[in-house]
Amino acid sequence: MNQNPTTSSPERAGGGLPDLSVDEPLTLVIFGGTGDLTRRKLLPALFALFVEKLLPDVFRIVACGRREYDDQSFRREMRGEVETFKRVSCSEEQLDTFIGRVFYSKGELDDPAAYDALRQQIDQKEFPGNRVFYLSVAPSFFAPVLRHLKNAGLIYPAGSPPWSRVVIEKPFGRDLASALELNAEVFRLLDESQVYRIDHYLGKETVQNILSFRFANTIFEPLFTNHYVDHIQITASETVGMESGRGAYYDTAGALRDMMQNHLLQLLCLVTMEPPSGLTADALRNEKVKVLQSIRIPTLDSIRNDVVRAQYAAGELGPENIPAYVDEDRVAGDSSTESFVAARFFIDNWRWAGVPILLRTGKRMARKQTSISVQFKRPPMDFFKTVQCEDDFCDLADAQPNVLTFRIQPDEGISLNFATKRPSMHLVVQSSELDFNYADTHEGELPEAYERLLMDVMRGDAALFTRSDEVEAAWKLMDPVLQGWRERGQRIPMHFYVPGSWGPQAADTLFDSGEGRWTNS
Amino acid sequence: MNQNPTTSSPERAGGGLPDLSVDEPLTLVIFGGTGDLTRRKLLPALFALFVEKLLPDVFRIVACGRREYDDQSFRREMRGEVETFKRVSCSEEQLDTFIGRVFYSKGELDDPAAYDALRQQIDQKEFPGNRVFYLSVAPSFFAPVLRHLKNAGLIYPAGSPPWSRVVIEKPFGRDLASALELNAEVFRLLDESQVYRIDHYLGKETVQNILSFRFANTIFEPLFTNHYVDHIQITASETVGMESGRGAYYDTAGALRDMMQNHLLQLLCLVTMEPPSGLTADALRNEKVKVLQSIRIPTLDSIRNDVVRAQYAAGELGPENIPAYVDEDRVAGDSSTESFVAARFFIDNWRWAGVPILLRTGKRMARKQTSISVQFKRPPMDFFKTVQCEDDFCDLADAQPNVLTFRIQPDEGISLNFATKRPSMHLVVQSSELDFNYADTHEGELPEAYERLLMDVMRGDAALFTRSDEVEAAWKLMDPVLQGWRERGQRIPMHFYVPGSWGPQAADTLFDSGEGRWTNS
Repeated sequence: MNQNPTTSSPERAGGGLPDLSVDEPLTLVIFGGTGDLTRRKLLPALFALFVEKLLPDVFRIVACGRREYDDQSFRREMRGEVETFKRVSCSEEQLDTFIGRVFYSKGELDDPAAYDALRQQIDQKEFPGNRVFYLSVAPSFFAPVLRHLKNAGLIYPAGSPPWSRVVIEKPFGRDLASALELNAEVFRLLDESQVYRIDHYLGKETVQNILSFRFANTIFEPLFTNHYVDHIQITASETVGMESGRGAYYDTAGALRDMMQNHLLQLLCLVTMEPPSGLTADALRNEKVKVLQSIRIPTLDSIRNDVVRAQYAAGELGPENIPAYVDEDRVAGDSSTESFVAARFFIDNWRWAGVPILLRTGKRMARKQTSISVQFKRPPMDFFKTVQCEDDFCDLADAQPNVLTFRIQPDEGISLNFATKRPSMHLVVQSSELDFNYADTHEGELPEAYERLLMDVMRGDAALFTRSDEVEAAWKLMDPVLQGWRERGQRIPMHFYVPGSWGPQAADTLFDSGEGRWTNS
Repeated sequence: MNQNPTTSSPERAGGGLPDLSVDEPLTLVIFGGTGDLTRRKLLPALFALFVEKLLPDVFRIVACGRREYDDQSFRREMRGEVETFKRVSCSEEQLDTFIGRVFYSKGELDDPAAYDALRQQIDQKEFPGNRVFYLSVAPSFFAPVLRHLKNAGLIYPAGSPPWSRVVIEKPFGRDLASALELNAEVFRLLDESQVYRIDHYLGKETVQNILSFRFANTIFEPLFTNHYVDHIQITASETVGMESGRGAYYDTAGALRDMMQNHLLQLLCLVTMEPPSGLTADALRNEKVKVLQSIRIPTLDSIRNDVVRAQYAAGELGPENIPAYVDEDRVAGDSSTESFVAARFFIDNWRWAGVPILLRTGKRMARKQTSISVQFKRPPMDFFKTVQCEDDFCDLADAQPNVLTFRIQPDEGISLNFATKRPSMHLVVQSSELDFNYADTHEGELPEAYERLLMDVMRGDAALFTRSDEVEAAWKLMDPVLQGWRERGQRIPMHFYVPGSWGPQAADTLFDSGEGRWTNS
């Protein structure tokens, strides 16, 4: 009768883990509900959560847009999109059930009547309690949409159930002043606890793995200091250019605003921050802010040496003829917007003083790749020569530095270069690689970033979202660069690079020791 | 006409490496020339060096033994042995040429006439200049053979060419007193520079790789301290027992003398020593001696807690019935010789104070395996739970420690256990392994230990051989154990273990924190 308490029965797979599912009824409203993000990412991610029983039992999704649909025609179309882009396998019945909970609400983003209609729709259909508003709209609409939502009484006050949460896509501001203004506006309408500034990079498994790697192991953390690290480089390269009219937005932003201010600085924070006291949203974000605030702020003078901007020239990429950036569709013919930026930062704290942190990102580059390389110093004693062989020929070189690489995409994983004795009568070493491929270790595919992040919004875990002070600290680092480019345009060169290359040669000058170089693999 | 000196032409494979071949004529004399070591290891190793053009152009091998052979019959037999045991592929012609340079000299080891005959043979046949004498004989013959060689005028004085070098197989002494005596005897006849005390473990690629691993990389050396290492364990297990009359010797030695005093302590030295100032024989051996001299010397009292001895009981190993150790052929029925020993040492220096170093070795164990595991401490912050799954069931555990393993044999390689995020919605980790298999990285097989060591003797590089003070320092650590077992025999238990197991349960008590355990994989 009495079970022996010392007999621990094995638990079902995952049974020992906390239950992540959310029980309370939920309505999720997507502004930009007919856009690409909704079709390719948001609905497929919500469907995966539904199949994996991580959505509440009672939920409704309302897509808001300007285009002409009714619920039926919208569902028909979205059913096709979900089928195309879904990650998980499912039954027809599951798909039908999910799609049956999707609704459409037509209206202009800046028309108050649209919000009244939305509220009526929600009230009439007795849509369930908690509310997520997902703003997948142009940045200029962030503040207006929030104001309209508030005015229409759609947002519950913070502090007591049911709750309302707002997810805001990047870019959050286009410089420090506009970010401050937007934050101020947001805080007139909402509490920080209601705001989820999304950076989908942070939802990627490998990005979260940086935390596990650094803090769930004893052997890496002691090495992540200026005693042992020579420099860190972070690359986010893309092969795409200004397809599908993307130039209209991109030419107003550029690589620095589009990628460096958010994704690259977030990766920088994760790889360099001090161990947090825990994994709560505030503990994590406090450490990230601390790093950003410790980075030496560029000056109008320093950016000449520390920042390189460039545009791609005309060229060929495989079979394709690529126009120069300034000749792209919906890009100004005299545009001074950068399609590539590389920068060198220094973190002036005890851990990282003197270690250059190099970031670069661009369009039309050789490969789509996001990676972080931590390059260590050479060993102080160079009594092992390194054998480097190519084809039939071998050379002897000095000891090679160790390199630890986090591959964020593609082929998510971690690799570590190190020297081992080359099997032979000589006491010489060769460079070897320990490689850990993330997909290999897990059957099935990795969860999509948006699945994880949407679930976190529902659960109220903001750890992987950007806090207002983080956004501001990041802009503080970008502002002098933007200002310098604007004010000293003629004296700060715009470089050019061949499509399909790794960017302009000028980016190599950021390694001023002459020894380091960009890792292009 | 004038070659541009800045144009560096690529060199042939290995062309950048120093030439290791030895040009001066050489005679190599093997005492114990008909024994197993000669057949299975020495001649095949010399043949590999010959094929790889690492022997001098002019060389002769003289095998000395008691059995009846003439040059022809000995060559015939050895040709078969070399064919069986050779590592390298070769032509018939190469085999013929090599075997044609092998000679046989019959005589008793303690008969002065045998040495006169050897000298005459060498003189008559105008055997070439430099001389290596390889003593593959019972330890009791080391001193007598050296005396006879000296008396017969076969050993040149040290200091000027041509040179004579003597290779002495283990065991070098059977306790501190006998080792001191043997060293004293050796130094009456020879200079330290003429003595090569061989420990074939040190010729193994992976053992040398420990040095490369530690000192050709920046990222491991800082971790090898008591700040980060919880303990180190070194295992050398064998499955064989007392086959082929081995009991006759083994029962007079035991696991402590046969394996721990030499092989295991050598591995301990390599993995814990301070970085040497260079790779010269003296620089390396100075550091090894320093470690041995820093190890806390056991006392008659401490060995009760720090050393475990055992004999295997009768049992089954696969299809085989195994007699108890004391019932083995040529083992005393009341033998108190250990076939297994495990011990815990402490290195009382700044780097390793407080870190237990655990060694174990034995016969008739579960698997033939030599490995070193460096087990790191757990991370101080335990906010990542570890998922451990077996079959369909998963449990959550505290963070697992990192483990770095050097596999010396078999499957020579290095592996590193570390935690990575488990792909899922949870922020939990799993234990992953970065594995580097040594054979995978190199076509063809690894050079045999004896090839490397014989070449080092010819080149006069004693770095991988044991110096007299090293031998003495090692015995100083073993002596109190031997004395304790002898004098307090009744009060220090002899444990027993099942053949095919990992030794007696009592060996687990060496982990007194209760947390650590032997790594049996």
